[in-house]
Amino acid sequence: MKRTIYLKKKSLEEARAILAKELVKLIHLGTEMIPVTHALGRVTAEPLFAKISSPPFHCAAMDGIAVKAESTYGATEESPKSLHINKEAFFINTGNPIPSEMDAVIMIEDVHLIDSERVEIREAAYPWQHVRAIGEDVIATEMIFYENHKITPYDLGALLASGHQEIKVKKRPRVLIIPTGSELLEPEQTDLNQFNFQSGSIPMGIIESNSYVLSGLIIEDGGDPIRHPIVEDNPKKIKEALLSNYERADLILMIAGSSAGSEDYTRSIIEESGEVFIHGISMMPGKPTLMGRFKDRPIMGIPGYPVSAIIAYEELVRPLLYHSLHLMKPERAKIKVFPTRKIPSKLGTEEFLRVKVGKLGGKFFATPLPRGSGMITSLTKADGIIRIPALSEGLNENEETEVELLRPVEEILNTVVMVGSHDLTLDILANLLGKFYPPIFFSSHPVGSLGGILAIKSGICHIAGIHLLDPETGEYNFPYIRHYLKGIAVRVIHLVNREQGLIIQKENPKKIKELKDLLRKDITFINRQKGSGTRILLDHTLKALLLEPSQIQGYEKEEYTHMAVATTVASGIADAGLGILSAGRAMDLDFIPIAKERYDLIIPLIHFEGEKIQRVIETIRSDEFKKMVLRMGGYDVSRTGEELFEC
Amino acid sequence: MKRTIYLKKKSLEEARAILAKELVKLIHLGTEMIPVTHALGRVTAEPLFAKISSPPFHCAAMDGIAVKAESTYGATEESPKSLHINKEAFFINTGNPIPSEMDAVIMIEDVHLIDSERVEIREAAYPWQHVRAIGEDVIATEMIFYENHKITPYDLGALLASGHQEIKVKKRPRVLIIPTGSELLEPEQTDLNQFNFQSGSIPMGIIESNSYVLSGLIIEDGGDPIRHPIVEDNPKKIKEALLSNYERADLILMIAGSSAGSEDYTRSIIEESGEVFIHGISMMPGKPTLMGRFKDRPIMGIPGYPVSAIIAYEELVRPLLYHSLHLMKPERAKIKVFPTRKIPSKLGTEEFLRVKVGKLGGKFFATPLPRGSGMITSLTKADGIIRIPALSEGLNENEETEVELLRPVEEILNTVVMVGSHDLTLDILANLLGKFYPPIFFSSHPVGSLGGILAIKSGICHIAGIHLLDPETGEYNFPYIRHYLKGIAVRVIHLVNREQGLIIQKENPKKIKELKDLLRKDITFINRQKGSGTRILLDHTLKALLLEPSQIQGYEKEEYTHMAVATTVASGIADAGLGILSAGRAMDLDFIPIAKERYDLIIPLIHFEGEKIQRVIETIRSDEFKKMVLRMGGYDVSRTGEELFEC
Repeated sequence: MKRTIYLKKKSLEEARAILAKELVKLIHLGTEMIPVTHALGRVTAEPLFAKISSPPFHCAAMDGIAVKAESTYGATEESPKSLHINKEAFFINTGNPIPSEMDAVIMIEDVHLIDSERVEIREAAYPWQHVRAIGEDVIATEMIFYENHKITPYDLGALLASGHQEIKVKKRPRVLIIPTGSELLEPEQTDLNQFNFQSGSIPMGIIESNSYVLSGLIIEDGGDPIRHPIVEDNPKKIKEALLSNYERADLILMIAGSSAGSEDYTRSIIEESGEVFIHGISMMPGKPTLMGRFKDRPIMGIPGYPVSAIIAYEELVRPLLYHSLHLMKPERAKIKVFPTRKIPSKLGTEEFLRVKVGKLGGKFFATPLPRGSGMITSLTKADGIIRIPALSEGLNENEETEVELLRPVEEILNTVVMVGSHDLTLDILANLLGKFYPPIFFSSHPVGSLGGILAIKSGICHIAGIHLLDPETGEYNFPYIRHYLKGIAVRVIHLVNREQGLIIQKENPKKIKELKDLLRKDITFINRQKGSGTRILLDHTLKALLLEPSQIQGYEKEEYTHMAVATTVASGIADAGLGILSAGRAMDLDFIPIAKERYDLIIPLIHFEGEKIQRVIETIRSDEFKKMVLRMGGYDVSRTGEELFEC
Repeated sequence: MKRTIYLKKKSLEEARAILAKELVKLIHLGTEMIPVTHALGRVTAEPLFAKISSPPFHCAAMDGIAVKAESTYGATEESPKSLHINKEAFFINTGNPIPSEMDAVIMIEDVHLIDSERVEIREAAYPWQHVRAIGEDVIATEMIFYENHKITPYDLGALLASGHQEIKVKKRPRVLIIPTGSELLEPEQTDLNQFNFQSGSIPMGIIESNSYVLSGLIIEDGGDPIRHPIVEDNPKKIKEALLSNYERADLILMIAGSSAGSEDYTRSIIEESGEVFIHGISMMPGKPTLMGRFKDRPIMGIPGYPVSAIIAYEELVRPLLYHSLHLMKPERAKIKVFPTRKIPSKLGTEEFLRVKVGKLGGKFFATPLPRGSGMITSLTKADGIIRIPALSEGLNENEETEVELLRPVEEILNTVVMVGSHDLTLDILANLLGKFYPPIFFSSHPVGSLGGILAIKSGICHIAGIHLLDPETGEYNFPYIRHYLKGIAVRVIHLVNREQGLIIQKENPKKIKELKDLLRKDITFINRQKGSGTRILLDHTLKALLLEPSQIQGYEKEEYTHMAVATTVASGIADAGLGILSAGRAMDLDFIPIAKERYDLIIPLIHFEGEKIQRVIETIRSDEFKKMVLRMGGYDVSRTGEELFEC
């Protein structure tokens, strides 16, 4: 077993300095001649001079007749002048060259045809009237684009008009990507059946996706990704892959194998044939990043966790690519946000926190997403990234901070923020809202029903989704609204009635029949978090049945969504959990009904009349929504979309 | 000759409403299955559900050993526990499945190898420590992307990890582009020799470039451009092109032929086989835009002038494409700017004014670029566009207004604004500055030397370039600085000494020898604008020689740059003009030296120490700059880069 020792960990800033000093000089992009018509997005490799003028001759700026201005002098409404066609007056269209000797154009609207030989005009022309002079736009020989200029669609027009057919551009930086790891599967050759969660067998591996994510980023940054097939954790094979491919790359990215694990060979392989400049950067995600030189090529060890890989790419590879093209790295738009809760962060490490952003009451709020480096959905769902500096211990609630946006701010402004209990019908709602133009985005934060109520109180959501049974009255939702939202005017829209019950293994091997069975020693339960409506329902029902929670094995282990409960059961960790029918059905599990409950949406009056919320309500009331909900099973939509009032 | 009559002209807002009402419903994009690995930038055609969970099994979050937590209880630093390899402890790498019965991972750093059969641990593990649970990131069956979602690089990771190999996406909108016009030449088949400005012959036509500009824009907007070869102005041929191609397009763009000229057939052809909804929009550029239906396909008549074509595309075609994909149209960043001068605009017409933007003294300033619709360089050089509403008569100097940026604001902040006299060495300087990383952009506004001095006074430029002879003292530049910039601290950096002289026809057919010859009746002169150093030099020299300006033919016709003067001579409109040697040489013209003059850069002290300006000065002092200047001819660089002081 080989152990590698970290070089002293560097800060991101130090890493960038070493990048600028050591790696930049190892990249030398070549040049190539390409047709202008294929030059979009390419970068000029030399200053470009106009080969011809534009327009290339004096030409008509209007459709009409070309004349010699002198010959029109004296023409007025009272005493028109007539001109001989093809002698003194030449019909001409916009863009056509002015016949020699002519020096003005009269608009066709002002030309009166007398007969086939003569036209009449009623106003004199002045010299060069409606004539575009040669070189008005571009003069032959002038420098029209500098070196290191990225070609836009507009530029294609200037290049073609100034006589360029081919231009010299920089070759795109070729980035060789080598995914390593014996546990990886090639995505296009993977038999998905092995992943069937009902089969009971453990699949062979994990589908390799980082190389495709990086390829996408490289393409967007103007580079040319070259993906190498997966290489297993075997130093010989990794070295072989490097040796036989490094020469066709301007930069090499080795994915995984750069942390301190037993099969992380990247570092020693690079040291054998080059040098390691940095190993370990005090950032999170992305710590085990490596920068070095393999032979004469720059190489980077990219961590294997998807979020780490992306952060390492964006913070270090992207700047290098832009540098190699001499282009400014584009910056993300930044706005000020308020965190919806306190977010502690590790001192000494720069953290890249993914957040959802919503605008309410004139302020932007940011809610943190899961922080694990393995959570690719923390990036696909994110609206932005907050950088928490190494010297900070975190963010305080209500302390304004900066977020780099991953989506246009217009989309965020068009986003409805829902906080509260999780329900699968919310995905259907979100999907239908996305069909509008402009689309409305629906961002839901599953924090349980009570969390939703509190979010309304804090003013950080447009809608709360709740299903809260008041044990004393048996009434749903209104007692909680009365209690927690005193003084806040809200409207209540009924979403669905739904069936809650025990989600259990397929074919019920443990013969569970009712809640009481949860106390059996051979049964492991999976619970929902405190404050969730489902948890309140469970506790209420247990109490009514005089069952003691502490006797339930697994009662203390909490999950945050119905689907997570269903997965825990499906994977065999638990035998039962309380949840909605649709979640159990999605996982092909069995279900024992326990209760029906009312799921409502609470909407503060200040948001209610807004365009976005009205669209949400329209959608909920649509037949399409109801039909799709019914198809999932376990839902009653007979009163869906109705506004509810306290009795 | 056929004349078309405009439908009542519509405002842009009305046009957009008709677009939303009539054209949108004519576009029906199909769907297709494509590999996820090729899905970057595509738009989902259905909601996508995870096919497998990610991770697909409980797996190690760290390299180390998998254990059953229970078996580690009681281990401490003082009383370590030993575990049997492959019975109680299993070596495992990040991402590998946890062996059955095991439920925790101990990091490799905390594992001590006793011998080949046993390891020792000094701390107990808790259940599920360093284990990523199945579905932690994505749970099988959950909706991971909605319909109408545009796939980002991050999304590729979530799609692959959740078991997608192919996904259903919308087909890209196919946009058929038909350039029309008998004057047009196919760019790749054009013999550029016919454009040689010395040949004397008038070339046959204008190189077609609009279709390529539009194609580039369509690609950037996610569409699929289909370019038809040029069709001449012949209604039969245009109709034929439409009839044989319309079925393979989701949208048709006919370039040119939609104004009111004699050969503008678009409208009548469309009316024969469909209908015209709008013809003429009160915007500038872009007025002769047409919207209609050809058979069952939406069609737009796009004006032939390049800037008009682009504005029509961006204001009407782009929204239609985004609408067809159900994506929000991206908005350009907007900032507040102050116009550097009053800009009148036509009441009743919405104008799209192209501007250069610079930041000075905490304020952004916008300088208008040429407004002609034929000037593609007014877009390639622009930093932004100011929309002047139809109900406005224009912008006032110092009245804050909004600009839509065409370049990232970071580039604008990295731009040095130079105002003043035009000199070809400024292009060399700009080109060299673009080689830095990050590049420095150099924006020069040729308004003459006096204009430069006044721009310093108004605080709207970083540098003024001047060559102003004081007739009384014979001294250059300082007398003007003293006179106009009283109270403003400036530094003066010498750029070049350069040769001014008469630019004349090649081989001097009119036998011009000296300034006096300009008074000859057979000679036409082209002048520079008032306030330019060259004009002051001319007037001073004429006066010294007692020559009467009014006797010079063409004295009143002004151009703004040396190259424009040279072009006017090269094209035969004038026989002579006063200008610099390098301009004459660029056009392969002859030259009669008249005077040497000093061209200096004036830099206000408040900008002088800034990083950008220091880079400019370094560049001027570099050997590379001097070498390139010398190569142009007519320049003396012996004191280039020196700071000059009043004597």
